[in-house]
Amino acid sequence: MTSPEPRLVEVRKNILKQNDLTARALRTRFRGAGVFVVSLVSSPGSGKTTFLEKTLTSLRPRYRVAALVGDLATENDATRLARSQAPVKQIITGTLCHLEAAMVEKAVAEAEWNLNDLDFLFIENVGNLVCPSSYDLGEDLRMVLLSVTEGEDKPLKYPTIFNSADVAVITKNDLAAAVEFDSKAALRNIQAVRPGMKVFQVSAKTGAGLDDYLQFLAQRLTELRSTTSV
Amino acid sequence: MTSPEPRLVEVRKNILKQNDLTARALRTRFRGAGVFVVSLVSSPGSGKTTFLEKTLTSLRPRYRVAALVGDLATENDATRLARSQAPVKQIITGTLCHLEAAMVEKAVAEAEWNLNDLDFLFIENVGNLVCPSSYDLGEDLRMVLLSVTEGEDKPLKYPTIFNSADVAVITKNDLAAAVEFDSKAALRNIQAVRPGMKVFQVSAKTGAGLDDYLQFLAQRLTELRSTTSV
Repeated sequence: MTSPEPRLVEVRKNILKQNDLTARALRTRFRGAGVFVVSLVSSPGSGKTTFLEKTLTSLRPRYRVAALVGDLATENDATRLARSQAPVKQIITGTLCHLEAAMVEKAVAEAEWNLNDLDFLFIENVGNLVCPSSYDLGEDLRMVLLSVTEGEDKPLKYPTIFNSADVAVITKNDLAAAVEFDSKAALRNIQAVRPGMKVFQVSAKTGAGLDDYLQFLAQRLTELRSTTSV
Repeated sequence: MTSPEPRLVEVRKNILKQNDLTARALRTRFRGAGVFVVSLVSSPGSGKTTFLEKTLTSLRPRYRVAALVGDLATENDATRLARSQAPVKQIITGTLCHLEAAMVEKAVAEAEWNLNDLDFLFIENVGNLVCPSSYDLGEDLRMVLLSVTEGEDKPLKYPTIFNSADVAVITKNDLAAAVEFDSKAALRNIQAVRPGMKVFQVSAKTGAGLDDYLQFLAQRLTELRSTTSV
């Protein structure tokens, strides 16, 4: 194998270093404005957009929410999320399989949102279980989603993304019986990769499990506000 | 945004160029040996391994088959595929989100398979709808899998991978009703991205649609053998 790996690694390191600096600056701005920022990662088709739409719709009566959504192509997800009536901005990444902090910074600027007017900002990453793991976006909480249709072994096969996330959400639980999902095995695999990880089991379709999750978000916002001077 | 993109692009180009050379050499070897090589790409959890296990089991009574399977971590897939009793070799990619031709070359050498003794070689790529698209593996046919649980819009959101593939396979059709899969919309989206693309709709669980697909593979092998001197 003669591909010039060492040079690629060096260039990647520079990009990651720049990304970390931008992410750190973003995090300081977000905290200063008292907005709690949540990013969502998962493989394509695990229900990120449906889950996020449900999240935005559920939070909106009590909180000021907005969302950024990343995709290689199309504005489909922004259109879907706009049904929640929350402000939404699409980020088109072209061929890039992840969001970077600079894209978040640019999108927030272009959207002309006043961060002080927000309680929650959600960032839906490109559907990918590999690329997004190394890129800090300045978020307070990273959620990795796993649908019951994907199989219980995904945490073992994609350990890095599960390690880089703070919380796991098992989606599409209404289909669990149809696909013979082994919930215990999935939970065991998550804990094997990231011991102590908090896990929510939900169905955006039936609403099952959403209350606990929404309460968790509300509590995290309270904690953020109590440690920063807004 | 100050990340050193031009340099990264240049390094990527070198890697791709090297990959193309290795892939070309592999293709020449595969053709010379009369083995028909099929690669499978899809997002994580769309049923590649189950579909491939079914393919190997179905072909084995009449053909000599083998499989390489790529994953970031774990040998789970190789273990599952070994149940088909076909020779299988796992490729662990570490943090890399795709297979490269050099990895295929190395795995074939390590497996010590005599290519002349094979009819079909299958290569299951890492679960990813972005990274694998640019890497030629020397295959004769690239199949992109899309499960009914992932949603009909995936071809529009990941056009590059659909463009780089020769055939699309819609998997898990036994779940189509449960997830209200809109088959017409999915087919329309595939054709929008890659007009004329051949599509198989299958269920590895019930066996639906598999006959057409297996017949297609057999025909492609016959064509390959008729154009090469084995």
